Amino acid sequence: MASLRGMQQPELSKKLFKIIKSENHAIGAYESASRERISIASQLSDWGESTGDDSVSDISDKLGVLLSELGEQEDVFAQNLEDYRGILKQIRNTESSVQPSRNHKAKISDEIAKLKYKEPESTKIVQLEQELVRAEAQNLVAEAQLTNITRQKLKEAYDLHFAATIERAEKQIVLARHGRRLLNLLDDTPVVPGDTRPAFEHAHQARQVLNDAEEDLREWAPNLEPIHSAATEMGSNLMPAQAGTAATSVSGQEEASMIGAGESTQGQLEAPAPPEHRAFGGSSTVAQPEAASSY
Amino acid sequence: MASLRGMQQPELSKKLFKIIKSENHAIGAYESASRERISIASQLSDWGESTGDDSVSDISDKLGVLLSELGEQEDVFAQNLEDYRGILKQIRNTESSVQPSRNHKAKISDEIAKLKYKEPESTKIVQLEQELVRAEAQNLVAEAQLTNITRQKLKEAYDLHFAATIERAEKQIVLARHGRRLLNLLDDTPVVPGDTRPAFEHAHQARQVLNDAEEDLREWAPNLEPIHSAATEMGSNLMPAQAGTAATSVSGQEEASMIGAGESTQGQLEAPAPPEHRAFGGSSTVAQPEAASSY
Repeated sequence: MASLRGMQQPELSKKLFKIIKSENHAIGAYESASRERISIASQLSDWGESTGDDSVSDISDKLGVLLSELGEQEDVFAQNLEDYRGILKQIRNTESSVQPSRNHKAKISDEIAKLKYKEPESTKIVQLEQELVRAEAQNLVAEAQLTNITRQKLKEAYDLHFAATIERAEKQIVLARHGRRLLNLLDDTPVVPGDTRPAFEHAHQARQVLNDAEEDLREWAPNLEPIHSAATEMGSNLMPAQAGTAATSVSGQEEASMIGAGESTQGQLEAPAPPEHRAFGGSSTVAQPEAASSY
Repeated sequence: MASLRGMQQPELSKKLFKIIKSENHAIGAYESASRERISIASQLSDWGESTGDDSVSDISDKLGVLLSELGEQEDVFAQNLEDYRGILKQIRNTESSVQPSRNHKAKISDEIAKLKYKEPESTKIVQLEQELVRAEAQNLVAEAQLTNITRQKLKEAYDLHFAATIERAEKQIVLARHGRRLLNLLDDTPVVPGDTRPAFEHAHQARQVLNDAEEDLREWAPNLEPIHSAATEMGSNLMPAQAGTAATSVSGQEEASMIGAGESTQGQLEAPAPPEHRAFGGSSTVAQPEAASSY
């Protein structure tokens, strides 16, 4: 077992916690592939020089340049995955922060049930029922924040993941296709013993292949189906932005600090209003923007 | 230091020996990335189910299917790199087998030089000079075989490497683009506390995305600039095939067993004929095929 840390996570965020950890291993694998590929590229160039065959030397040196760039693209991919991983963490952090709110609500309900059984006449029951109403209101907010952040960040995370996959793929295709052009400059006609190979005649063309590859990479631009998001209308309280003054009560605070993970649930969430007095309108359609914008 | 084995390789094949070793690490990294990606795909599907949000559950399950296939493609890539690595080994083996031939020639030259200095009248000098002629003939064959195999297999190896890079890239682009379609089926309009999300309406479309991705992958076919090789005209003795009867004297033997690595150079190579009596014609152009064919 690599670590017991996953066990200490709130139940709600355990699964994402593990995914984020696995992604760290995946990213490490791509970083390792990148390092190896870059190292091999340079070794290949050295090997080519050591053959004493000027055609093999020139081609392998230029293959090395393309292979090294292929390796760099693996690292760019790894760094993009790191960003994607950071977005998953935002969902996980919200999950962690919602757990105490659920626990608090459940705890009060339990206490009330116990008291009603043991001391049905206790005045504490009324007090606890008032507390439960507040806890429920708070939890409703927390759950709304959780679904809002989950959907928004899930889209954002995999938008980034797929865009990174496409970027690596398109750039590596450019490099590999130019690499194939290089190979065709190497004459592999077999010679008989004692023959000397003619001098390499395609040095200029080989250099041109690298220039073309460099230019193609420079001109590369993403061409993606945009991911539409309606979450841009979400306020910093993780609620619909147009939902009235209550929704702006926590604006200015950072999303991440809104719900302090692991803190007491008391006072943890600034409920815009108890659900029965909501100022948001009866349905979420109020907050739905007309035109979905892409990010 | 990982190993001292590289030190025991003949000088001539040390560099390729290390490249082949590094490629093994690179392949391992891709295999590891593949495993992690497939594992994360399944974890993501589980996580989505646990959210209790049927939209997130459906989308994350189908994202999982695409991500799992992205991971499979990393493994296909790793297996293709394994084949490429096998081709590099063919060059390395020929390098290893040529080393004793070089050593043998140099050793006889040294002996002759020493004898001429110490015992200029020794009859052994004549004997050694005859032996040197044979060793030189043998080495000429070995060196021709080495350049022939080096150029042919270098092209073949990187043909395979680049084709594998393009295959992974094109298939992953297909998967990632369909993945982006999936994301657009998830409505991330924020809700207010107490609202319930409407039921997921795009289950059919989400299923269709997977079907489309599957079909696109099934219809995928490589579209590559062919690599032209003239080495298809090479006989199993690693010489031009049309070079006369002498060139076929070792046909039927396996390439790998032609030059036994580490064996004595005496009798190791079947020289088609001493260089001064070559039956191959004066230049390699005799053996050059008119039309280069691609493999």
